[in-house]
Amino acid sequence: MRGNEPTLGQLGEFPMIDRLVSGRRQPATTELGPGDDAAVVRCADGRTVVSTDMLIEGRHFRLDWSTPHDVGRKAIAQNAADVEAMGARPTAFVVAFGAPAHTSAADAAALADGMWAEAGRLGAGVVGGDLVQADSWVVSVTVLGDLAGRTPVLRSGARPGGTLAVIGDLGRSAAGLRLLRDGVAGFDDLRRRHLAPEPPYGQGAVAADAAAQAMTDVSDGLIADLGHLAAASQVTIDVSTAGLASDHQALVAAGAAVGADPWSWVLGGGEDHALVAVFPSTEFPAAVPVGWRVIGRVADGPARVLVDGAPWSGQAGWQSYDG
Amino acid sequence: MRGNEPTLGQLGEFPMIDRLVSGRRQPATTELGPGDDAAVVRCADGRTVVSTDMLIEGRHFRLDWSTPHDVGRKAIAQNAADVEAMGARPTAFVVAFGAPAHTSAADAAALADGMWAEAGRLGAGVVGGDLVQADSWVVSVTVLGDLAGRTPVLRSGARPGGTLAVIGDLGRSAAGLRLLRDGVAGFDDLRRRHLAPEPPYGQGAVAADAAAQAMTDVSDGLIADLGHLAAASQVTIDVSTAGLASDHQALVAAGAAVGADPWSWVLGGGEDHALVAVFPSTEFPAAVPVGWRVIGRVADGPARVLVDGAPWSGQAGWQSYDG
Repeated sequence: MRGNEPTLGQLGEFPMIDRLVSGRRQPATTELGPGDDAAVVRCADGRTVVSTDMLIEGRHFRLDWSTPHDVGRKAIAQNAADVEAMGARPTAFVVAFGAPAHTSAADAAALADGMWAEAGRLGAGVVGGDLVQADSWVVSVTVLGDLAGRTPVLRSGARPGGTLAVIGDLGRSAAGLRLLRDGVAGFDDLRRRHLAPEPPYGQGAVAADAAAQAMTDVSDGLIADLGHLAAASQVTIDVSTAGLASDHQALVAAGAAVGADPWSWVLGGGEDHALVAVFPSTEFPAAVPVGWRVIGRVADGPARVLVDGAPWSGQAGWQSYDG
Repeated sequence: MRGNEPTLGQLGEFPMIDRLVSGRRQPATTELGPGDDAAVVRCADGRTVVSTDMLIEGRHFRLDWSTPHDVGRKAIAQNAADVEAMGARPTAFVVAFGAPAHTSAADAAALADGMWAEAGRLGAGVVGGDLVQADSWVVSVTVLGDLAGRTPVLRSGARPGGTLAVIGDLGRSAAGLRLLRDGVAGFDDLRRRHLAPEPPYGQGAVAADAAAQAMTDVSDGLIADLGHLAAASQVTIDVSTAGLASDHQALVAAGAAVGADPWSWVLGGGEDHALVAVFPSTEFPAAVPVGWRVIGRVADGPARVLVDGAPWSGQAGWQSYDG
């Protein structure tokens, strides 16, 4: 709520939607944007990639930590990462937003501005949405994406002998969350990363073009997400901590400040939306695309994830219902 | 919550998702269904129609009135109607579902069953989703649709001289809501219609093929939704109550039972998701497709909706923030 700004309850649904929608510049793929019963998005590929994520206030974000702009960026980023992880590019988003009547129109507009800022980095548009009354903020985003003729890169394609590689940072968001919870000053960059992640946009398509066998984004935690990939592919994945030294190094000071082991963030922290993929190895070391870091290998064996050849005993990652 | 059924909190996110997803039969348009970072849906048309709606427990449905199966059907139906209103056919849905940890797994499964039952009537599939913890139920659905080469039918295309026609029932859902609120017995069919609407599936494409100039579905209320169409088209729409006599007649007994004017339901009640369209009139009376009922005409004049040539003084329809 802000001083002279009307609330959603005062402004009403349709005037608020007009304010959220007006003046936005849609990309060429948006054949019909907001304002009708539905939008129309081009899919020249003959296929549409689609994924959805819901963010709940108090569970996925806190409005005393995140600005509405941050929440908008994060909601777009985490959906975009799911499309990237298929080897596709995001083209369009639709957004359902639930909020109390006392929410300021300025905060709702800032949420939309954050979404547009992040979508703009992808060349994508927000093409439609829904605005409803709710007891607290609920932000539900669906992303559409374009494979541009590529074969989708599944979780199930990893084969023994493959090389595991990552692009994007690991552990930053989890470290930032801990710093926010503990109220520890400094480390502004890590806190920012929790509030608005920086996925490696464009690299999903790069990996697909480099013949990636399997890919996923790190949304729940590296070990947890690799666990899904290992299960889908029925392989053993062996992660090498040597390959993750730069992530660990970046978090040592923050770990010392809050008394935490940086490895728990690197291996168990999600929400940075790094991309992790398996590339075929015809030689060793395998060729991976520029900027990707080799962090392990795929072996024949039961579906499991090892760390330096041994089971990992720390927390693997996040679940929606974790008691 | 049910006797021996585990709760979402006991079962956990991923086992619950497995239960929701397993054994479902995807249509041919689903190239890749649930289980990876995103789904892949065919769009042979080169365009995807997309729309989203969020349902909030206590605001859009009550779990003491609706079964979870009803909620699932309603969430799919109202999204499907938005795609129909463009002249397209729904092909795929993604669903984000927020619910408390104490929600029974059986209730979550019944929600999904209801979604699949309704999607199945359309030949569409539920291709992906998200499951998160929330204080109460939140159901956010996004629908994808296929125009099959048709030009989308917008709200903005109505021209003076056009014939206004409707297919599907009006006022049933509003009557059912009032009966539920007042706890009046009998009229089971009307209560059912509120809990699970029956949109006229397939008729959006029929209208598009019959050269409909403009179309929308009645989600907020006939006068309210025609108001959007009149504003987008910059025309005056004159609704004839003579054309709505059958809807009125069907609600007379219920109106008497609760002391309400059936016209307020027919003209102001939403959520039945009838389709209302404007057809070009080269002759009078105009030819409209089989099953469509002529309920008025489009005239030159300011953007407004008249009833029998005069302004309507009753409630026009529903808004998300209505104080």
